[in-house]
Amino acid sequence: MLTAAPLSPAAQATLAAWHAMIRARDTAGLPALLAPDAVFRSPVAHKPYAGAAAVAMILQTAERVFSNFTYHRSLVSEDGQSVVLEFSADVGDKALKGIDMIRFGADGKIIEFEVMVRPATGLAALGEAMAKGLAGRV
Amino acid sequence: MLTAAPLSPAAQATLAAWHAMIRARDTAGLPALLAPDAVFRSPVAHKPYAGAAAVAMILQTAERVFSNFTYHRSLVSEDGQSVVLEFSADVGDKALKGIDMIRFGADGKIIEFEVMVRPATGLAALGEAMAKGLAGRV
Repeated sequence: MLTAAPLSPAAQATLAAWHAMIRARDTAGLPALLAPDAVFRSPVAHKPYAGAAAVAMILQTAERVFSNFTYHRSLVSEDGQSVVLEFSADVGDKALKGIDMIRFGADGKIIEFEVMVRPATGLAALGEAMAKGLAGRV
Repeated sequence: MLTAAPLSPAAQATLAAWHAMIRARDTAGLPALLAPDAVFRSPVAHKPYAGAAAVAMILQTAERVFSNFTYHRSLVSEDGQSVVLEFSADVGDKALKGIDMIRFGADGKIIEFEVMVRPATGLAALGEAMAKGLAGRV
């Protein structure tokens, strides 16, 4: 029997702040939502990115790379510690679907942020745009 | 406030049957779980595959292509009509992570089955293996 436990109030607050940032297209406050040892798991690369500074830079770059970004279904895990946010977006002239799979720590901070996208053409466009976007910040 | 509604008993039964098939590595009964107009959204291709026969063939082929397939977190949507099943698996010598995003109709049958995987090397290996696997069935 699959049922989802409620998210903790602290995780709910983090999730609400994340949605507000995406709506406002202003992710300056993102580092405050991340645990110091947060990990980002990329749709492109196998190796995770570790640490709040790296995770924030990647998510802020992604926010600029996507256009027409829209969230759809939201899902909660059985243990109430993770959510999946379904999205659609464009990268250049490629349309893609994706999910943000976010795990929260006991204090409500984000400890893991994993992204998957489809189809292959969208993933390739995202990989190229992210490489350019991250290079522009170094 | 993000909370998940309970899955309907009919959808719970379909999900339990799906898990039993994957555990037994025997998906012969899969067509009975699919709505006639079920749609499959591929991690590789943009265009959806429509109809229970096509969806069953793709999922049965995928089941043979993966090795070391293991489900991890399960998540339920706010409206209680969709689940996300997180998995890890190997395709040949490539390790991948993925999600099955499954939507159920009012009668509990699967009406939409969407798959996303990461990283890019895993997606490429899956695309190649699926093309070979499907060609072997034609």
